[in-house]
Amino acid sequence: MMKEERYEMRFGGSGGQGIILAAVIFAEAAGIHEGFHVCQTQSYGPEARGGRSKAEIVISHEEIDYPKVIGMDLFLAMNQPALDAYFVDFKPAGILVADATFVDQVPTSRALVLPFTTIAREKLGNELVANIVALGAVGVVCGKVGLASLEKAVAHRVPAKFTELNIRALHAGAEAARQQDLSALPPFIDSDEEKEV
Amino acid sequence: MMKEERYEMRFGGSGGQGIILAAVIFAEAAGIHEGFHVCQTQSYGPEARGGRSKAEIVISHEEIDYPKVIGMDLFLAMNQPALDAYFVDFKPAGILVADATFVDQVPTSRALVLPFTTIAREKLGNELVANIVALGAVGVVCGKVGLASLEKAVAHRVPAKFTELNIRALHAGAEAARQQDLSALPPFIDSDEEKEV
Repeated sequence: MMKEERYEMRFGGSGGQGIILAAVIFAEAAGIHEGFHVCQTQSYGPEARGGRSKAEIVISHEEIDYPKVIGMDLFLAMNQPALDAYFVDFKPAGILVADATFVDQVPTSRALVLPFTTIAREKLGNELVANIVALGAVGVVCGKVGLASLEKAVAHRVPAKFTELNIRALHAGAEAARQQDLSALPPFIDSDEEKEV
Repeated sequence: MMKEERYEMRFGGSGGQGIILAAVIFAEAAGIHEGFHVCQTQSYGPEARGGRSKAEIVISHEEIDYPKVIGMDLFLAMNQPALDAYFVDFKPAGILVADATFVDQVPTSRALVLPFTTIAREKLGNELVANIVALGAVGVVCGKVGLASLEKAVAHRVPAKFTELNIRALHAGAEAARQQDLSALPPFIDSDEEKEV
């Protein structure tokens, strides 16, 4: 990244979907294992009681002055209410990664929609790792944090008993993302087009 | 709190001391169960590889414009290196809560020094819950988040198998803090005195 360039991500989902854990893991992978400056933030407002949650990550090679998202380079949406609520701040050249299991409508064509929860249930036998499946996909799409770093951070944050399951979940998500042709997405969405969708 | 008043906290410790989990739990207790606006932030810089970690929480009744700590109202230090590294930004009327097990020298007389890790080991049989013991004490010292809210957040964040242990840890920490006479602390430390210590 160029000097002062920031890469900004937001993860959104319901309270039980493990958004914050996924964000903490990504932040540790980027900050501890890849050497980025990282700020990872949870914000709760009056809407927090509704069960929606969001977590944000800003990474940079420089010190980070403002730790919250200004414009999203990547938005992970684990369900439709979180997608609708937190899509603001999406950059024209940003990318949306959404869980097809719980998302029907995407407001941009720069979207990678994969069934994270279905993969977690069917390939891994446990819906609770859908967040880590999604994290594997996010790692591939973002391209700034290696899978090995994500593995280390997963192993640090998850109880030993569940480490192997979560590592497999991470790889399943990465594999699902790699099978998509990201270069086929439109490179840039102008705001008029976005409004029409 | 008055309009726009912020209450700012920082938790610091080594990588394995569970600082971030404690901060996420406190933030959920304050944001989801007590209805505050809350921003909870982890920052990683070049020093992250050294194993130190810090987490910050800002709570307010108003929307929070800047999510990081400007001046600490409460600083939880789980070991000496974290205390030394992150004591900057301590407010004159702030309060330091430190783990006596791993802290020898406190740079302010506005300090509550309790052996969180020793309590975790001896009363609860598991050093790994020292962070939750500390969290119980922090809840009492801070005074803005009820123990019931902390309990709910602990139960949400900790694997079911360990919920009871962690709830007991929370209460042990709260009890240890309640036995101290906080009103006996000097109300305000001026910066000259702080420098001399």
